[in-house]
Amino acid sequence: MASGWFYLSCLVLGSLGSMCILFTVYWMQYWRGGFAWNGSIYMFNWHPVLMVAGMVVFYGGASLVYRLPQSWVGPKLPWKLLHAALHLMAFVLTVVGLVAVFTFHNHGRIANLYTLHSWLGITTVFLFACQWFLGFAVFLLPWASMWLRSLLKPIHVFFGAAILSLSIASVISGINEKLFFSLKNSNRSYSSLPSEAVFANSTGMLVVVFGLLVLYILLTSSWKRPEPGILTDRQLLLQLRPGSRPFPVTYMPVTSRQPCESW
Amino acid sequence: MASGWFYLSCLVLGSLGSMCILFTVYWMQYWRGGFAWNGSIYMFNWHPVLMVAGMVVFYGGASLVYRLPQSWVGPKLPWKLLHAALHLMAFVLTVVGLVAVFTFHNHGRIANLYTLHSWLGITTVFLFACQWFLGFAVFLLPWASMWLRSLLKPIHVFFGAAILSLSIASVISGINEKLFFSLKNSNRSYSSLPSEAVFANSTGMLVVVFGLLVLYILLTSSWKRPEPGILTDRQLLLQLRPGSRPFPVTYMPVTSRQPCESW
Repeated sequence: MASGWFYLSCLVLGSLGSMCILFTVYWMQYWRGGFAWNGSIYMFNWHPVLMVAGMVVFYGGASLVYRLPQSWVGPKLPWKLLHAALHLMAFVLTVVGLVAVFTFHNHGRIANLYTLHSWLGITTVFLFACQWFLGFAVFLLPWASMWLRSLLKPIHVFFGAAILSLSIASVISGINEKLFFSLKNSNRSYSSLPSEAVFANSTGMLVVVFGLLVLYILLTSSWKRPEPGILTDRQLLLQLRPGSRPFPVTYMPVTSRQPCESW
Repeated sequence: MASGWFYLSCLVLGSLGSMCILFTVYWMQYWRGGFAWNGSIYMFNWHPVLMVAGMVVFYGGASLVYRLPQSWVGPKLPWKLLHAALHLMAFVLTVVGLVAVFTFHNHGRIANLYTLHSWLGITTVFLFACQWFLGFAVFLLPWASMWLRSLLKPIHVFFGAAILSLSIASVISGINEKLFFSLKNSNRSYSSLPSEAVFANSTGMLVVVFGLLVLYILLTSSWKRPEPGILTDRQLLLQLRPGSRPFPVTYMPVTSRQPCESW
């Protein structure tokens, strides 16, 4: 039942993620004239598409690798490589998205990095880069001790979720800002809510729903990879399936209080 | 040591939260002409101050009530009342903040709820209202069964953190939008980064740092209130202090794997 909910969540997540990217592409193609790579405003149009794809959709999907029950058994290294490779793809999309906006600005002599959106966005990308390199150096390369890994793992997990939250905040402020710029000189202003504004606002809300679902799956304890000494009900059930090889079980003391004291 | 870090985090959090509110007040007072309650732009100036105070600072502080070690022993009801009362204060500040912006818009015949900032903001306040009333009905009133409480508690905890993340996204997009409006007709545009823009952008980044610290304290497992059957090292140490009355301890099976399999 818990597995069913997990795979249903993944299906919803895949659909939502695809919609986030497709909606952003459609917005740029239908209302903003499409794409080019020549320093014009059509080059800028890659920026929202690549940031939504890289910093939100690919990043969110890459974060969830260890929630797949298949990753809980056997060696962890292939899953670590997949986790790192998917995040690297997300990072490459992000960097190309940044190149698009900086090139457009420089080509049109527009100032860089003055809005709060850009301050937050560039900070988020910087944190993502630090997170990836630290994760690669500590968890993938073999030199780090168990002590260092166990010290850094909760920080790595926290910043994984935090960077996604900051990406969502950056995307929301970016869409908001883009609509103010684009509809400033149009015959229908943002405040009259033309169809473009309704569509782009809805795309922003879709990004929020996608991000919240990723965070929910990330933080739901019964969907986490079992750690030494902790086993949830769902993980126990998976261990007890016919043909599965259960982990060795030992006994250790835990508190036993009446439930009514705790709620 | 863990307790020391917790109280140091609380001290930093208190200072950051106060700075978030004071910086927003200073921005509105020094650059935007101060405050009034008469439907003018000076009435709007209450909006950023009250949203930062209500949806971020008071909300964040209220969320952390159960992280105080004092709340882990004795009856839980007084702490539940404190949690609900502080969140109610946060909600009242938020509603007054909304009254300020809607009155200003209606007075000046400006459209309501057309920006993505407003769509996300109003959704966040709606989720906050649902969260408060559901929390009050299920966890504070005595009618709900243990089964219902244990079913809803992880959802309540998740949405608690999610609403704070959405509040931060709303504040960031709001500050960004306000600077575009305010500096549009000024002799120094936003893109030339006048001192007001640097100050307001920095205030936004401060709100982000505050929010991340709240989320870090919320999600750090050793700072959580002990649940039945789970006791962390820090919680065990607190139970073993001289004069403390330890919880009854029983034994249950848990997995035992080599650490090298897990990292």
